[in-house]
Amino acid sequence: MATLQDQSSCFKRMPLIERYREFMPLTENSPIVSLLEGYTPLVRVDRLAGQISDKITLYVKFEGMNPTGSFKDRGMTMAISKAVEMGSKATICASTGNTAASAAAYSARAGLVCAVILPKGEVALGKVSQSMMHGAKVIAIDGNFDDALRIVREITDSYPITLVNSLNPFRIEGQKTGAFEICDDLGHQPTYHAIPVGNAGNITAYWAGYKAYKEAGRIDGLPRILGFQAAKSAPIVDGRPIPNPETIATAIRIGNPASWKQAEAARDESGGLIEKVTDEEITEAQKLLARTEGVFCEPASAASIAGVIKKAKEGFFTENCEVVCILTGHGLKDPERAKKICEPMIEMPADTNEVAKVMGLI
Amino acid sequence: MATLQDQSSCFKRMPLIERYREFMPLTENSPIVSLLEGYTPLVRVDRLAGQISDKITLYVKFEGMNPTGSFKDRGMTMAISKAVEMGSKATICASTGNTAASAAAYSARAGLVCAVILPKGEVALGKVSQSMMHGAKVIAIDGNFDDALRIVREITDSYPITLVNSLNPFRIEGQKTGAFEICDDLGHQPTYHAIPVGNAGNITAYWAGYKAYKEAGRIDGLPRILGFQAAKSAPIVDGRPIPNPETIATAIRIGNPASWKQAEAARDESGGLIEKVTDEEITEAQKLLARTEGVFCEPASAASIAGVIKKAKEGFFTENCEVVCILTGHGLKDPERAKKICEPMIEMPADTNEVAKVMGLI
Repeated sequence: MATLQDQSSCFKRMPLIERYREFMPLTENSPIVSLLEGYTPLVRVDRLAGQISDKITLYVKFEGMNPTGSFKDRGMTMAISKAVEMGSKATICASTGNTAASAAAYSARAGLVCAVILPKGEVALGKVSQSMMHGAKVIAIDGNFDDALRIVREITDSYPITLVNSLNPFRIEGQKTGAFEICDDLGHQPTYHAIPVGNAGNITAYWAGYKAYKEAGRIDGLPRILGFQAAKSAPIVDGRPIPNPETIATAIRIGNPASWKQAEAARDESGGLIEKVTDEEITEAQKLLARTEGVFCEPASAASIAGVIKKAKEGFFTENCEVVCILTGHGLKDPERAKKICEPMIEMPADTNEVAKVMGLI
Repeated sequence: MATLQDQSSCFKRMPLIERYREFMPLTENSPIVSLLEGYTPLVRVDRLAGQISDKITLYVKFEGMNPTGSFKDRGMTMAISKAVEMGSKATICASTGNTAASAAAYSARAGLVCAVILPKGEVALGKVSQSMMHGAKVIAIDGNFDDALRIVREITDSYPITLVNSLNPFRIEGQKTGAFEICDDLGHQPTYHAIPVGNAGNITAYWAGYKAYKEAGRIDGLPRILGFQAAKSAPIVDGRPIPNPETIATAIRIGNPASWKQAEAARDESGGLIEKVTDEEITEAQKLLARTEGVFCEPASAASIAGVIKKAKEGFFTENCEVVCILTGHGLKDPERAKKICEPMIEMPADTNEVAKVMGLI
């Protein structure tokens, strides 16, 4: 394990794939398309941990602090860099929103045309606004995510356009950096790595990242992977594709994950598990984290917290251990959902005494 | 100027006010309330610069990559740390949204009760959802920002509640760190520092930060400060308070800035200027940045870009120079506004040929 660098104030971000260049499929001539992503904080959340279990030291890796507000930027910097290297002029993806936002942003940064295919009515406001602002052609189809993915595959089979869904192998390569950062930050691997599972690209990438770091001698063991799917959108747990997946956590509303087998391998090789959490558990976890620790993640992200809470209640954590929960995206990605689950604001005249009364001061 | 630290992969965020401790009013016993804010990227934007002027090297400091999505976190970590040190149990602020979101998050992190007073109907969706999620009591009054500020002042005069508006002197102290980071990142001060001006706390803090860094010998000169207000919300430019300020850039819709005199001092001491940009110029700059460079900022942030574009058109930049534009908040703070100014999404059946036609492929 390399020692932590001097913690003086001087600091300059590097492009993420440059920073971890030795682990990335870059050539000397690869262009680097970067928005200075990564370097996300690993926040120790003792107050929340205290409410969950006396056995765990809990951290959240807040991936919402990437440029487009989600972990997708880690893979997109790699995928778009490679697209440019290969001479591509256009990109396309199917997406519930976060991939689209990231693809649109990095394509804009590189001067590429971008198209995003979304399942109509299943996308959070924040995410759509991003794709539009970055100038992507946004197409909402009458169908679900799996329909969108089929269309994208058919189009990239027939036309010279780069597919930047997680089927793009460079996406997974870039996303490995999340695991690297966690190990660099802690100085070692965590005991447990808790993560939401939707299309299963992220669980695949983290497991590959931990294994690569172990192989390179940067860590001396591997974490156990705890994956969590939304209850009515849990094809891996149920062992069969779900034709009409349902959950308020739109980012993991996936009925037929692209990286299904790899997710099972991560679970089995690590001695971990993939289980379900309900929408109610997700919502409660999202609120609890925001109110106890000041970290606002999107609903899908809270599946990792909800899962750890559920496992703690079952008595899963029997010995002192370190748990890292991946928070995949920022709560600002889905502000409408947040407003729905909170008390409404209080409207009143601009009168100090009235305000003091409402605050319970008089 | 200290040399940049070793750029190896190992990196661990420190709390911002710990990182710049020697410049912060901390005692040995000060508690540190942090969400690991700061470390925001300084993104070099050559493609955008190429469209503006052949004289400038342009950077954007993307403050939207703070925990709550705006620069306010820099000051709030300091203000809430001091509130806890002084034994406070509750906080209050008047806010157009970003301060409220930050106050709510850091108060939650510290276990303090928080109340936010908002001007009704003038607040972006993302920001309100944040205050609510972090468990603050959100009170929307029939009045403007200045009414909200008056109520907050009267309440903190009468009750033991900590005011965390920019009137709180610790906010400005923490916000100085933005200037420190820019100088640490570049290795020197920029030639020009362009910044949106609303309540004028941020322009005040940056100027104070640059001066403190020069005094400490970390930089050998000072930038010229270029402040920009929204045209119909420009009290400093107009030389009088604006009773009913109007602009789509809600974060700088302020008619009577709290730090008015300090903003004028920053302008005059630095040999800079404070001028107006129209809502149209702000919107165009926001879209241009998002589409050319993949960086999505909130409307108010784009005032800095709009201002630089305007000054370039006037022939202001006559010699090669470095310009840093502060992007105060993330575009996800105001997704409704973004949707309004973009082409609507295209809705269609889940048919590959139809999608290919819409994309202009056949």
